[in-house]
Amino acid sequence: MRFNPELDAIKTYEAGKPIELVVREFGIAPEEVVKLASNENPLGPSPKALEAIRTAAPQAHRYPDDSMFELKGALSRRFGVPEESIIIGAGSDQILEFVSRAKLHREASVLMSRITFAMYEIYARQQGARVLRTPHWRHIPEEFVELMERERPEVVYLCTPNNPTGDATPKADVFRIIEAADPDTLVVVDGAYMEYAAAKDRSFAISPSEILAYPNALYLGTFSKAYGLGGMRVGYGIARPEIIRALMKMRPPFNITTLSLAAATAACGDDAFIERTMELHFNELERYEAFARAKGFETIESFTNFITWILPEGIDSTRLSDALLRRGVIVRNLAGYGLNAVRITVGTPRENDRLFAAVEEVLG
Amino acid sequence: MRFNPELDAIKTYEAGKPIELVVREFGIAPEEVVKLASNENPLGPSPKALEAIRTAAPQAHRYPDDSMFELKGALSRRFGVPEESIIIGAGSDQILEFVSRAKLHREASVLMSRITFAMYEIYARQQGARVLRTPHWRHIPEEFVELMERERPEVVYLCTPNNPTGDATPKADVFRIIEAADPDTLVVVDGAYMEYAAAKDRSFAISPSEILAYPNALYLGTFSKAYGLGGMRVGYGIARPEIIRALMKMRPPFNITTLSLAAATAACGDDAFIERTMELHFNELERYEAFARAKGFETIESFTNFITWILPEGIDSTRLSDALLRRGVIVRNLAGYGLNAVRITVGTPRENDRLFAAVEEVLG
Repeated sequence: MRFNPELDAIKTYEAGKPIELVVREFGIAPEEVVKLASNENPLGPSPKALEAIRTAAPQAHRYPDDSMFELKGALSRRFGVPEESIIIGAGSDQILEFVSRAKLHREASVLMSRITFAMYEIYARQQGARVLRTPHWRHIPEEFVELMERERPEVVYLCTPNNPTGDATPKADVFRIIEAADPDTLVVVDGAYMEYAAAKDRSFAISPSEILAYPNALYLGTFSKAYGLGGMRVGYGIARPEIIRALMKMRPPFNITTLSLAAATAACGDDAFIERTMELHFNELERYEAFARAKGFETIESFTNFITWILPEGIDSTRLSDALLRRGVIVRNLAGYGLNAVRITVGTPRENDRLFAAVEEVLG
Repeated sequence: MRFNPELDAIKTYEAGKPIELVVREFGIAPEEVVKLASNENPLGPSPKALEAIRTAAPQAHRYPDDSMFELKGALSRRFGVPEESIIIGAGSDQILEFVSRAKLHREASVLMSRITFAMYEIYARQQGARVLRTPHWRHIPEEFVELMERERPEVVYLCTPNNPTGDATPKADVFRIIEAADPDTLVVVDGAYMEYAAAKDRSFAISPSEILAYPNALYLGTFSKAYGLGGMRVGYGIARPEIIRALMKMRPPFNITTLSLAAATAACGDDAFIERTMELHFNELERYEAFARAKGFETIESFTNFITWILPEGIDSTRLSDALLRRGVIVRNLAGYGLNAVRITVGTPRENDRLFAAVEEVLG
């Protein structure tokens, strides 16, 4: 059976190892496994979202409201943007897919930083588009501007804060890149971890309403990280209605589950949970920084809920992450990104203790 | 901003009106609304699935097991097919989308019956493919064979039982069409309502393992209908591993929520619920048939959880469904399919009483 030729170039995304798999592989008890690989909120789901899930569960046979009236209303009020500027995706991931399918084709190209979220490339390749990367993994405006002028990419991805590095791009730099883009280039500002950057330093905080000032920019946000709903698959895109209308044509009906819709709507109003999340996170992040210093690991300053340790020459990231896995601690090895580094989600104090102890044990 | 030219030809799928919308529009109390428009199971979700959702809810922050180990295992055992022959989608809808994107392009075509599930066309148009339809809305083998020989379509859709008509295609006819197809034509057998056909008449029951006998066929099933999980968005595709591997390249990671995965896995083992569902359904279906006879409506013999009434000349399907809506009863008007007909989900006895009373009231 023949398939479209684009399929030949597609590599499959390697997701973080689920707890169940580790348990199966090494016979470790589920309650002993510490999963710090997928940047999930260690506090669990927002309590308001959890309550909404429980209330909505008996309605699991009902298709969701495909107009997403309540969730769009909640986001509209939260960000001060009109509802026709909002699209909902099964995670912001799905909106990346809509962007690729609405803008890209075999003659198109996309521009992104050297090391950034893996799905940008995967979705671009599904469309047969060419992938261009800046020389540095940080988002350097000069590098983006030069490549945009030379290559005229159809889509530019700015991931801030950036995954898997954890750094963020100053707001002024982001706007400079958007302003330098061709009016026909869609600049996607992926703010999946924006709540963490905003809590740390306002000069990195980009709000969706600011993105609406530009006719060629799209803001992406998610309920998967700070709101603790990674498993519910809800993200949103905010842009001028003209862009949203085009993306809506690629949106399949009922792309969010009934329970996800209820959970995200409830989470939207759970500011207290975000505050608790940030307090825990920044306290624990300091411990990670101190531990790295003591061990002589270089760290990238984190604006996210994870920290990236760049390991010294004598320590191999693949060996370290494998050794941790055998001890029931799951982190993300960044060897696949060309870095001798590990990305670790900042967990609860107990989880972090386990991680530190396991690292000590492995490195002696 | 320019977008891909395919977008111009895309019409947006019109989903069944959610209860919330009716409530908003006509000020009807939610508990008074009877929704018989989206072919949801009137008994609600499978109790085993509901329990699984409640148990898994505190894990809503965790990404799902992207290997879908347990769900694939459950389906593998249920249907006697190997796990590498299974792909999971956010509803079988999403697998239709994978098929389109893996096989279709601007020079490709798809073949389907004159009146069938609307998403086949929508996904085909997203790829810029040409849509071919047989003259009759029933799946007549001769019509399919002739068009396949003349047009060599990349994909053929056989929807059995068919939505929105409710009829089914005899098993022997389905196999005849598959056998006549070019080895490079993917024949998709969409069995979203197969549990109902199988309960009614075994000569219409197609099992996934039978489809595996063909190198160019794909079986689609869903948890949205008989299992009562329409809101959870879980469907499956079963085919030779070569086909599944290609479709997997179009599958985004984490395409099913953590709770959906738990719910579908549990539902797989809930045979008692399917039995109860079928018993209620076929009893109530008889009442619909009797009511239609008394009213002089023609019906298409139903192999699904809905019934299609073809209305006599004096009764307009749009007027009837609007009048029912004002009374809080939601049915699907098929005027958009070129039929003066309504599609009604068979509900609980109480819901069906409400529908019959409302129809009497409207028609006098």
